[in-house]
Amino acid sequence: METLATHKVHGGTLRFLRHQSESTGTPMQLTAFTPPGKGPFPVVIWLSGLTCTEENFTTKAGAYAAAARLGLIVVAPDTSPRGEEAPNDPAYDLGQGAGFYLDATHGPWARQFKMESYVVRDLINLIEAELPSSSRYGISGHSMGGHGALTLGLKYPKRFESMTAFSPIASSMRCPWGIKAMTAYLGEDQSTWENHDAVSLIGHGTVEEFEFDDILIDVGTADPFLEEQLKPELLAEACDWIDQPVTLRMQEGYDHSYFFIQTFIDDHLEWHAKRLKR
Amino acid sequence: METLATHKVHGGTLRFLRHQSESTGTPMQLTAFTPPGKGPFPVVIWLSGLTCTEENFTTKAGAYAAAARLGLIVVAPDTSPRGEEAPNDPAYDLGQGAGFYLDATHGPWARQFKMESYVVRDLINLIEAELPSSSRYGISGHSMGGHGALTLGLKYPKRFESMTAFSPIASSMRCPWGIKAMTAYLGEDQSTWENHDAVSLIGHGTVEEFEFDDILIDVGTADPFLEEQLKPELLAEACDWIDQPVTLRMQEGYDHSYFFIQTFIDDHLEWHAKRLKR
Repeated sequence: METLATHKVHGGTLRFLRHQSESTGTPMQLTAFTPPGKGPFPVVIWLSGLTCTEENFTTKAGAYAAAARLGLIVVAPDTSPRGEEAPNDPAYDLGQGAGFYLDATHGPWARQFKMESYVVRDLINLIEAELPSSSRYGISGHSMGGHGALTLGLKYPKRFESMTAFSPIASSMRCPWGIKAMTAYLGEDQSTWENHDAVSLIGHGTVEEFEFDDILIDVGTADPFLEEQLKPELLAEACDWIDQPVTLRMQEGYDHSYFFIQTFIDDHLEWHAKRLKR
Repeated sequence: METLATHKVHGGTLRFLRHQSESTGTPMQLTAFTPPGKGPFPVVIWLSGLTCTEENFTTKAGAYAAAARLGLIVVAPDTSPRGEEAPNDPAYDLGQGAGFYLDATHGPWARQFKMESYVVRDLINLIEAELPSSSRYGISGHSMGGHGALTLGLKYPKRFESMTAFSPIASSMRCPWGIKAMTAYLGEDQSTWENHDAVSLIGHGTVEEFEFDDILIDVGTADPFLEEQLKPELLAEACDWIDQPVTLRMQEGYDHSYFFIQTFIDDHLEWHAKRLKR
């Protein structure tokens, strides 16, 4: 692991890190905030949206005041493999910056685009080896990263004890962003897509396997992607169908930006702290 | 005035704006945060540092939670004229992005680089015309913008009732950044520089004209520019000489970044609110 930069912030330590990922076969970058004190501390993993790197959340979310106060490690990885070793696409919503937190099986993507394995294996191994972790994890994210938080949270309930999202893609199979990405990364057979779609994961009876007392989701009513891409109502319906509690807050007048995220990030970190520290 | 973008944040309204400046003869961009409620609200003007636009503070400082709570308008202008109509220099510390909050009199800069007049006249005229201002102003800033806050605060004490700075260039005449900029913008005659140097403005007896009960300055002890460029001790000495109270806080382990600023921005906004609302 290489430390690229270190900053003191709100009494804690923020590091920009790079490490070699077995899953992607490439170097991956991330940021890790460690609160003041000795720990061990619970960990919240933040997954960012399309076009983002590890830097967007880190500089724009204003999360570290609450993380310091609550005693949370906050880790924000990049959204895909990068560089000349990995394939890319000129579109903003495919390839680098658009990993969709799944393991690709098709096309030029199949070798490096293994973001599901990267997050749940390599990233967590790094955290366990290098940070004062209590080995209790929450997961959150925004937009494509909200989809990542929900799908990985649902698929790995032994790993993630708390789950929240901002403006998530609720059903990747039922929106243009997700359909494009899954066609490229997973191929035409839609039966393989369901394993990467939050609504399908809830609806297909995997409820027995997870035990979230509640799920917090914030979405802005002025989000330009709300109707075509995000469709949070599908998630609410799926949760209702299986009696999974979900707290879906439609936040009046807020949009898809980090100005929205910074407004409510403290609520999300408190949500995680309450569950990961009990 | 043209509104380029609007975001709801912490219950208030953030706008990216563009207007034509008489002083610079160019379009100028800025951001303006208006807290929730009707106002009128006091105004804090934030001046950014070298290389910054109006966006850096706006996205990275995490200032709007406190501004909303305290009922402050916060305005962040760009750091210089921009575009093909204005001259430039390939260096990061001269020309566009490096206006130094003074009115240039020399060289190719003399027409457009009028950032002192822009801030104290055009920007304030815009605020008074377009925002629910109480016409009470505080000023703050970072690095080159800390220099701007201190020099404009000292020169226009009838306008600015409160003054704070992060990591300011305390004496622009006594550091490489300032010497380079003032040579280019004002010419070789250093007697013209003193009017744009905070230490000189304090030391030359203009104290009679300003009545700051105190000045808040935060500087990080791990700031790489501390000794060569910032020299806050010169400001402390000048204030001590004339019995001007100054609260200089050397913040252990913090650097020159917006991670430092976001850690202490609430203290600064509270400082301004206390003075501008009484």
